[in-house]
Amino acid sequence: MAPKKMLLIVCDGLSDRPVKELGMKTPIQAARKPAMDALARNGVSGTMDVIGPGVIPGSDTAHLALFGYDPHKVYTGRGPIEAVGVGLDMHKGDVAFRCNFATVDRSMKVTDRRAGRIKNGTAELAKAISGMSIDGVTVLFKEGSEHRAALVLRGPGLDHRVSDVDPHRESKILESRPLVPEAKKTAAVLNQFVKKASVILAAHPVNEDRVRNRLPPANIVLPRGAGSINELEPLSERFGLKCAGVAGVSLVKGICRMVGMTVPDVAGATGGTDTDYNAKAAAALRLVDANDFVFVNVKAGDIAGHDGDFRLKVRVVESIDMMLGLILKDLREDVVVALTCDHSTPVSVKEHSADPVPVTICGGGARIDGVKEFDEVSASSGALGRLRGMDLLPTILGIADRAEKFGA
Amino acid sequence: MAPKKMLLIVCDGLSDRPVKELGMKTPIQAARKPAMDALARNGVSGTMDVIGPGVIPGSDTAHLALFGYDPHKVYTGRGPIEAVGVGLDMHKGDVAFRCNFATVDRSMKVTDRRAGRIKNGTAELAKAISGMSIDGVTVLFKEGSEHRAALVLRGPGLDHRVSDVDPHRESKILESRPLVPEAKKTAAVLNQFVKKASVILAAHPVNEDRVRNRLPPANIVLPRGAGSINELEPLSERFGLKCAGVAGVSLVKGICRMVGMTVPDVAGATGGTDTDYNAKAAAALRLVDANDFVFVNVKAGDIAGHDGDFRLKVRVVESIDMMLGLILKDLREDVVVALTCDHSTPVSVKEHSADPVPVTICGGGARIDGVKEFDEVSASSGALGRLRGMDLLPTILGIADRAEKFGA
Repeated sequence: MAPKKMLLIVCDGLSDRPVKELGMKTPIQAARKPAMDALARNGVSGTMDVIGPGVIPGSDTAHLALFGYDPHKVYTGRGPIEAVGVGLDMHKGDVAFRCNFATVDRSMKVTDRRAGRIKNGTAELAKAISGMSIDGVTVLFKEGSEHRAALVLRGPGLDHRVSDVDPHRESKILESRPLVPEAKKTAAVLNQFVKKASVILAAHPVNEDRVRNRLPPANIVLPRGAGSINELEPLSERFGLKCAGVAGVSLVKGICRMVGMTVPDVAGATGGTDTDYNAKAAAALRLVDANDFVFVNVKAGDIAGHDGDFRLKVRVVESIDMMLGLILKDLREDVVVALTCDHSTPVSVKEHSADPVPVTICGGGARIDGVKEFDEVSASSGALGRLRGMDLLPTILGIADRAEKFGA
Repeated sequence: MAPKKMLLIVCDGLSDRPVKELGMKTPIQAARKPAMDALARNGVSGTMDVIGPGVIPGSDTAHLALFGYDPHKVYTGRGPIEAVGVGLDMHKGDVAFRCNFATVDRSMKVTDRRAGRIKNGTAELAKAISGMSIDGVTVLFKEGSEHRAALVLRGPGLDHRVSDVDPHRESKILESRPLVPEAKKTAAVLNQFVKKASVILAAHPVNEDRVRNRLPPANIVLPRGAGSINELEPLSERFGLKCAGVAGVSLVKGICRMVGMTVPDVAGATGGTDTDYNAKAAAALRLVDANDFVFVNVKAGDIAGHDGDFRLKVRVVESIDMMLGLILKDLREDVVVALTCDHSTPVSVKEHSADPVPVTICGGGARIDGVKEFDEVSASSGALGRLRGMDLLPTILGIADRAEKFGA
């Protein structure tokens, strides 16, 4: 059997709980979604604990699991994912941090953790503090969107087990402390970098302009979420897959790059509820031609969940369904399509929850069970049963005739 | 989302197999049980392997699993559970045994393994042999119900891997043997204790009275089921839960105490088929007010199973349903209720069996699947799918918005 191509569509946070105002239906159950239902009708469905029963997935750990990795083994903090997301390379032994550009007063008390949600000039500021060398450690710094940035420390003898400089509230900045003796040097280098950077940032023309315009200056960086990349064998090596990802948000982009996907910029794919669904569909179709495995993340459902807006969430389901319809209409025949979520973000909770998510796989060798609709409850009666997130990709590989044999 | 309170009701051994005389229905299927069915109709159901597929759970290992522990890791024998059940403290390093008061003749042959099911005087007998010191090891001994008792050895260099003194039939008592070299001292202390105790017991006024009344004297103790407590982090520390348990039998009480529950004495909660269901319902309702997690065990179904009495078992289902109805009628709104069994005790087997058990969770963020009845077969088509016992509490915690996030 010739191996099939594979398309995995992840509806970020779309999975939900019964909503009173929707007559105890979930937003997915309440929405009109002919394309999703067609997929369920012609494929095999199930319910999935993305990390495990009773564990609330982060978007980062969830995507690692959906790509077939054991997040408990490979995940050491959000820093590396954020760093790769903004475009910094990560090597083995590097320690990475998420950072905010922030504002401090003369006593080093944080007065604005986001420097007035600074939008312009962060590229220049980042450039001014990137590349310095401290105790034989090279410091790489790059801006993300708005006040967000990432920091990579590269050199011998580093260890990610250090505490945050970011106080996470408006108070004096913290000294990073080693959480294990091996991390002493890392904490010292990090503290020195923050001090040196603040001197450079305070005197930078971008900040002089901001002060003149009565805007809070971005005169400090606040690192948090230290992490290293453990052995993370990319999908290309693990399964021999040429793969690509479409995602709007840098966190998910970062994970895609970490696992070896190419991540083209798709104009209009914003990672917001205003994302260009047509552009995403076109990008997916285009990438399927040139790759074995294509991944598409649509963030909007998670946003509607965090906002607690069940009406918006129903609309998001219908928009994603429209996008899926466009894809299915023009998709080549030899593609296995999988549709699922990375976690639930119930509108009643406004945060991620541990509730399992629906999953449907259609095409290739997928069986056809009796499930007629794609939703949290219908999918659970499907022939896939209940599975774990890290078993999804192997399952898809099996249905796409790409699984490996064990034994003779 | 505010975390919800949680109530777990475990119907001991209620789960069963098809019964010919009931038209191939199980006792649960054959019974009238409006409250159980209402719970299933408004919640999410599934089928559960309490330990694992094809493993017959003991009541002890089953409850450890239901409380979220891996019984393969924390369970080293019934002794510690029995000891905590009768009210002896267990410390790390202690070795505990279940014991019977029994009768031996002059040649140390056991003539009655239960000393005529002795009912009175065991507290005095236990007191007479408790507290002695042998080779630097303190011996604690306490009576349980009827002929049952528990023994704790406390001191340096002990190891639970020793064989039983109890011959488990009417023959000469055994010498305890070390099963590993490290347990040599433990076996020696145990054998000395049994000998010294038999001298004290034989001369005790309680036994002089028994002999005078032609009753078999409790002139020996027969230790068996040696075990130690491994690292068992209480639920309070693991999940930050204030928790309480209602149970009639000392074995289950012991497990409740081991995991950090308060276990109030409930008048009329006997652990028999004559248990006071109204008192149990009232106790559950009262404890829910003061705790985050309340556990209720009803033993009667297991007894009906062991007796092979399907008519009694149907009546037990209906009694438990009545109790559940009382609880649900007066229960505060913010409580997640879970209903399940610790194992099956089919009337056709008269023993525990490996058959999975039904489970239903209702309230909080629980989804509503299409399951309309609580029984072994209906529950298996529910959206919980098939789960393991040790995943139950994490699942309930997730539905009660008490789960922990992994990742960002």
